[in-house]
Amino acid sequence: MHSRLVVVGGGAAGMSAASAARRVDPELEIVVLEATGYVAYGLCGIPYYLAGLVGTAEELLAYPAAYFGGRRRIDVRHHVQVTDLDPDGHTVGYRQGGRAHRLGYSRLVVTAGGTPNRPALDGVRSDRVFTIRTLEDAIALRSLLDAGRVGHALVVGAGYIGLEMAEAFAVRGCAVTVVERLDRVLPGFDEPIASTVEAHVREHVDLRLGADLREVLDLAPDVVVLATGVRPEASIAAAQGARTGPAGALLVDARMRTSLADVWAAGDCIAPHHRVLGGPAFVPLGPTANKTGRVAGTVAAGGEAEFGGIVGTAVVKVFDLEVARTGLSVVDAEAAGLPAHATDIVHRTRAKYYPGSAELHVRLVHGEGGRLLGAQMVGREGAAKRIDVVAAALHAGMTVADLLGLDLSYAPPFAPVYDPLLIAAQAADRALEAV
Amino acid sequence: MHSRLVVVGGGAAGMSAASAARRVDPELEIVVLEATGYVAYGLCGIPYYLAGLVGTAEELLAYPAAYFGGRRRIDVRHHVQVTDLDPDGHTVGYRQGGRAHRLGYSRLVVTAGGTPNRPALDGVRSDRVFTIRTLEDAIALRSLLDAGRVGHALVVGAGYIGLEMAEAFAVRGCAVTVVERLDRVLPGFDEPIASTVEAHVREHVDLRLGADLREVLDLAPDVVVLATGVRPEASIAAAQGARTGPAGALLVDARMRTSLADVWAAGDCIAPHHRVLGGPAFVPLGPTANKTGRVAGTVAAGGEAEFGGIVGTAVVKVFDLEVARTGLSVVDAEAAGLPAHATDIVHRTRAKYYPGSAELHVRLVHGEGGRLLGAQMVGREGAAKRIDVVAAALHAGMTVADLLGLDLSYAPPFAPVYDPLLIAAQAADRALEAV
Repeated sequence: MHSRLVVVGGGAAGMSAASAARRVDPELEIVVLEATGYVAYGLCGIPYYLAGLVGTAEELLAYPAAYFGGRRRIDVRHHVQVTDLDPDGHTVGYRQGGRAHRLGYSRLVVTAGGTPNRPALDGVRSDRVFTIRTLEDAIALRSLLDAGRVGHALVVGAGYIGLEMAEAFAVRGCAVTVVERLDRVLPGFDEPIASTVEAHVREHVDLRLGADLREVLDLAPDVVVLATGVRPEASIAAAQGARTGPAGALLVDARMRTSLADVWAAGDCIAPHHRVLGGPAFVPLGPTANKTGRVAGTVAAGGEAEFGGIVGTAVVKVFDLEVARTGLSVVDAEAAGLPAHATDIVHRTRAKYYPGSAELHVRLVHGEGGRLLGAQMVGREGAAKRIDVVAAALHAGMTVADLLGLDLSYAPPFAPVYDPLLIAAQAADRALEAV
Repeated sequence: MHSRLVVVGGGAAGMSAASAARRVDPELEIVVLEATGYVAYGLCGIPYYLAGLVGTAEELLAYPAAYFGGRRRIDVRHHVQVTDLDPDGHTVGYRQGGRAHRLGYSRLVVTAGGTPNRPALDGVRSDRVFTIRTLEDAIALRSLLDAGRVGHALVVGAGYIGLEMAEAFAVRGCAVTVVERLDRVLPGFDEPIASTVEAHVREHVDLRLGADLREVLDLAPDVVVLATGVRPEASIAAAQGARTGPAGALLVDARMRTSLADVWAAGDCIAPHHRVLGGPAFVPLGPTANKTGRVAGTVAAGGEAEFGGIVGTAVVKVFDLEVARTGLSVVDAEAAGLPAHATDIVHRTRAKYYPGSAELHVRLVHGEGGRLLGAQMVGREGAAKRIDVVAAALHAGMTVADLLGLDLSYAPPFAPVYDPLLIAAQAADRALEAV
């Protein structure tokens, strides 16, 4: 009997799913329904494309457009708006070129991604407002930058993407205003880390915290970039009763099955299992999209795979700073009702006598019995991959004492003899003893 | 009753022990017997001092010389040769300034370090032979370099220190010959990693592998540096029946107790517990010296501490390469009678479109049931601290599948969306499935 896998959305999750399904089943018909003119695009690369570090938008694609249709025999349909799902009839409806279509499927993978939040922008020309969620958007904005038509850029939101965009505009020589409704940058981070980032950002751009968007619109910026987060685009499955969780994201099991028969989901539209929280969490990031897409496609095509869950690891470059986190911040832990304490240290990234050493701020978050709950780091070097040691420790359920015992690498050019992570663990251990 | 702690050796382990003991017991009399004119010296920094990256030898000291005698009230005796130990009488004998002394102790910590191996060097002036184990040696060699009297340097041994010294001489503009008895560099690493390092070293210096030392002495080098490893300096305790293990190093429990009553040991003279091997191993490295010294001093002074063991983590800068390892190499595993397989991958260190990406070779070593046994890495960036993720995984006893599931950080400037470690874990997982 003929089998058709339909994938809704051709981003990182969708193309990972389609490719994984092809590896499992060489005979399967695979159709991808994509809203834009591109697939397998890396949204995370857009700020660097806009900054001019990347020459063309095509370089952001994981594979050339022809690759999927050719070697992988994946039928990619572009400029498609999926309108509805009939799980009983096993069909999806979509519009393309002004016409309505219905497509039958044996199995369906929903990787519809996230929808950017759009605050009201009265009086701003819509062709000067960008969301950095599609390559088309990025290409249009890059054209304006290349044409020298962006004297002043307004970035709305001071999360990861907002700060990356602020840097991109600054690199291009624009005057930049960043406006944030909250009184802080990087809401996923605790205050001591965020305040270091805030001070650094202020060295480069006009940062307005706790500010009203309407007031800054009076500055008449040439372009406005919206970076106020995304909502999971779960609507077609949720409308049919698929179970949803945090932020309205689709709930899935470890094999990426939704509660609807023959419907899997992956990427920014799901809330996968968070190992530290012990439940689902909505943390839309690239690695999770790729991994969950691969699991969904593998299982939907008849193979075996499971997703081990997330611990909330993320890193961002903000001008000259590396800013990293994993697990729970104190704010996260309090929101989840978990008792949490934090220990902060600042230590150098290399032997004290070795040139080029930088100061690294490490914050460890720990809970009952010294259980490690998370970490945050900020510094000019050494944060981005050092955070992964804590990510591994969180996967293993380590305590502060376990972290203290780790045999971490040392050589004068790369670390002091006690790595900053061990210095942080020592301080946390002393704080726990003093309780 | 009056209590006296005597510490034999004032290097990293000894001064860590003395300082930890002071923190536990403000009243304890603490005496350190040190062979050289310095204490708390960082031997690992010597190559960078010789290269001229560090201005003075004093900058390599963890604390100024006066610090211990002053604030910490530690009685440091310099230029002392400890000759013998009487565990029943609780005394140590030593010579200082041509005179013999005996000193009673309540508790003793042996941190006598390592003794460099000294191959025969017929016909070479002894004042032109250096071992890079004392600051005095380093200062004398630096003087020769600063005076322009080292046109040609011979380095004997192509391990960590030999290669660091080769780089230091090259930075100073010397002609450099490195001679190694084995047919390879970095004996702790497997061949595929070592051969990459070998090719890189050959771009900078004259490297002679499988070579006879006597032949290269015909080159009449201006200086000879011996970097052929160290033996544990366990003799004073071993002569009294203290139990020894690998390489003749002292055996200790997790609290750094030797088999002699009231005698602890730490640093390069011990064989601590290796968590992957499941038994003692002689791996003389700085972090272990610091940590075991701290445990020994804490416990000897009446406090509570345990050492969690090592996993064999090390990193070295070799010219433009970062070279890192943790756990067991295939060679190590075979020597220990453990079945082992290796998986090698090469992957980029940043997003493919982000400037400055380098290739990182990751080798994973895995054993029965996919148990992770170790990893090695080499590349122009990204090895030094990435190895620590595997070190944490080894502490936790993870499998290849566990490693594959880690939620590692991603941003285009710092890593590709699948970190090289995850690419390696994927490849190892496929290799395990194919078995």
